[in-house]
Amino acid sequence: MRILNHEIPSAVGQTVTVAGWVHRRRRLAAVGFLILRDRSGLSQIVVKGPEAQAQLDELGEETVVQVTGLVAANPQAPGGAEIVDPTITPLTEPAQTPPIELWRPTVGAGLPVVLDNAPVALRHPAIRAGWEIAAAALHGFRSTLDGLEFTEIQTPKIVGTATESGANVFALDYFGGPAYLAQSPQFYKQTMVGVFERVYEVGPVFRAEPHDTVRHLAEYVSLDAEFGFIENHRDVLAVLREVLAGMLATVGTRAASALERLGVELPEIPAEVPVLHFSEALKLAGADPDEPDLSPADERAIGEWALKEHGSAFVAVEGYPMVKRPFYTHSQPSDPRWSNSFDLLFRGVELVTGGQRLHRYSDYAAALEARGQSAEDPAYESYLQAFKHGMPPHGGFAIGLERFVARLTGAENVREVTLFPRDLHRLTP
Amino acid sequence: MRILNHEIPSAVGQTVTVAGWVHRRRRLAAVGFLILRDRSGLSQIVVKGPEAQAQLDELGEETVVQVTGLVAANPQAPGGAEIVDPTITPLTEPAQTPPIELWRPTVGAGLPVVLDNAPVALRHPAIRAGWEIAAAALHGFRSTLDGLEFTEIQTPKIVGTATESGANVFALDYFGGPAYLAQSPQFYKQTMVGVFERVYEVGPVFRAEPHDTVRHLAEYVSLDAEFGFIENHRDVLAVLREVLAGMLATVGTRAASALERLGVELPEIPAEVPVLHFSEALKLAGADPDEPDLSPADERAIGEWALKEHGSAFVAVEGYPMVKRPFYTHSQPSDPRWSNSFDLLFRGVELVTGGQRLHRYSDYAAALEARGQSAEDPAYESYLQAFKHGMPPHGGFAIGLERFVARLTGAENVREVTLFPRDLHRLTP
Repeated sequence: MRILNHEIPSAVGQTVTVAGWVHRRRRLAAVGFLILRDRSGLSQIVVKGPEAQAQLDELGEETVVQVTGLVAANPQAPGGAEIVDPTITPLTEPAQTPPIELWRPTVGAGLPVVLDNAPVALRHPAIRAGWEIAAAALHGFRSTLDGLEFTEIQTPKIVGTATESGANVFALDYFGGPAYLAQSPQFYKQTMVGVFERVYEVGPVFRAEPHDTVRHLAEYVSLDAEFGFIENHRDVLAVLREVLAGMLATVGTRAASALERLGVELPEIPAEVPVLHFSEALKLAGADPDEPDLSPADERAIGEWALKEHGSAFVAVEGYPMVKRPFYTHSQPSDPRWSNSFDLLFRGVELVTGGQRLHRYSDYAAALEARGQSAEDPAYESYLQAFKHGMPPHGGFAIGLERFVARLTGAENVREVTLFPRDLHRLTP
Repeated sequence: MRILNHEIPSAVGQTVTVAGWVHRRRRLAAVGFLILRDRSGLSQIVVKGPEAQAQLDELGEETVVQVTGLVAANPQAPGGAEIVDPTITPLTEPAQTPPIELWRPTVGAGLPVVLDNAPVALRHPAIRAGWEIAAAALHGFRSTLDGLEFTEIQTPKIVGTATESGANVFALDYFGGPAYLAQSPQFYKQTMVGVFERVYEVGPVFRAEPHDTVRHLAEYVSLDAEFGFIENHRDVLAVLREVLAGMLATVGTRAASALERLGVELPEIPAEVPVLHFSEALKLAGADPDEPDLSPADERAIGEWALKEHGSAFVAVEGYPMVKRPFYTHSQPSDPRWSNSFDLLFRGVELVTGGQRLHRYSDYAAALEARGQSAEDPAYESYLQAFKHGMPPHGGFAIGLERFVARLTGAENVREVTLFPRDLHRLTP
């Protein structure tokens, strides 16, 4: 019966079997060490005698082995124990030397080499840490929303029209006709508010954006939530705050070791996120009051303000000009130039966009007409059907998983925390 | 503060506010009834007096309203209580009459009408029940595997090559070059066994199969699991059994109301699923011993055998001929004509396929060569890199979510339990 490496220290005096990858071998004059890696961490196996040492020489790094031996206390070994008198059985043929030295504490290779060799590079404890945080964040997202009685949905990624956000779309051949990859589940999640009131979806979204930057991906994981019977966007912000708190707490518990490996300290999110109106935000940043958007420098200034005034790494800017928001955005009732939508900034950079949507069919018809489009357009027919037949006031938000993890870990390039990134130049591995 | 319909019976004597959709109106001579639907179920609101009744007349079915009134006990009302003296406030404009009568206990419309009008049809309590079961099944799949220390992964759906299963693929234009939609996460989940040992993924898969049948979809949700350090496929079957037990238990608790609405009784899965070797299965079904596959009639016979001999609705057939399995399949060590793979049958129909995979690079090279292909082919390069650098014996399985729910509910057509199906003829809604 196999035990995991992290269980070794509590098995001193017992004969145990472990299995994993040869992480590193070390040869001294009279003794050799095999550092074994499994999903729980590293262990040290002491190899003595010429025959055993000769065997160790032939087991290249990354060879998969099973080891049976006696657990002995040793304060210098990881966890205070090691395995002695081992019988080592290879479970595969000897591994070829990896293109990246996985045993070095820090990653020696540059990002292109890491990405080209992702199938093996991801085994590096510091590289895989990024995805451990991502997986914990997914868990926290779902468990928080499950607790709030949201229903998970899974909606089609192949769609018949490309109308939602105006972003660039990938076109494909669908049984001889045109189709597109969904840029977001926006229309579907709104539709499903009519069915379940509260829904969320975790899934891939696709953007054919020809941007070669450190933050754009052609495919990423979007964490979407949408729910009905709200007063306005402030209700959406309150749920988003719960969700982020749940994600951070889950990362803190389920990915504690990954955070430690990366030296990342989790931020605290205040019980109430400070909110600035867009017009105040411009003022505060010293920007022109007619600016329709916040510049990166403006966002940084607002982030600094939130930290100084509220001790918060998070701040929401509400009321973004309607002209910069998609057609389904609900306007601010007191002044229709502004919107009932917000951006949530984290450490002075946009992290999540959310807001209230239109819910009356007549409002959609007017909003589309104002943009030179028509609610009668077949592209909108299925989407708007839900609104013809009764939809509650509702809103929601979307979190980009990879961007969230990058901001949390301080990764300069979102690709560092993406398993197999897709971009303008990269379609493999 | 809004309460939900199912909370009304415990609020007798109190003034409460509820909100939802006008599910049905009923007019008697002296009194009217508004049946209100929210995510928790139905409630009854008693409307008296000519003014209030006139208002009720104008609120078409599906209009979204908020109702404040006094809760009174009434044994004839749903849950034994109803709301009297209501103030009804519409939250939207009056809804248009839906194309399907959502208030009828059974669905009156045929499947094409239901699918064409899915944004509204899904509100029908009997139609949405299918997805409630699906959402619960997703929850059970993840929580069982989380408990077994699997790590969730999310892998790319846009891929550079179309080599995995030989199934038909969708081609797309990727920044001017060719790319494809992933038919399964098979290669990626195997690769990630090298990183996390145990992984699962829930996500869309795409099959450009020009089949117009009741069980094929062009896009469906695949529940994939893969894990290392196994003895053989029997370890995979044991984990699959845990996962199915967890999915069924979670459906039983989280989707109890949906099961009741559909009149579905959940099957029990035995602690150990009965297993037949493929060669015995042919014998038992009275088929030709040289048949390379089981016919639907064979599968039914095996299902009947399992029910009669083992009292089990589930039975596994192991050892399928290698010639019928993909190249990454591990052969049966005692006889390489057979494979270390299985199909799990549920009520005499295939539900899940799983098995042990090859884990040595040299075995992959030989398997591909035997099929007239080469491990040096750039299409396999990234995939096989993981095997060059040490992979443990491993295996896994994949469950099609919509097919699982269809089998469980007895739906004749998989589209009945798919939110927005995609097939040869359907790309909207």
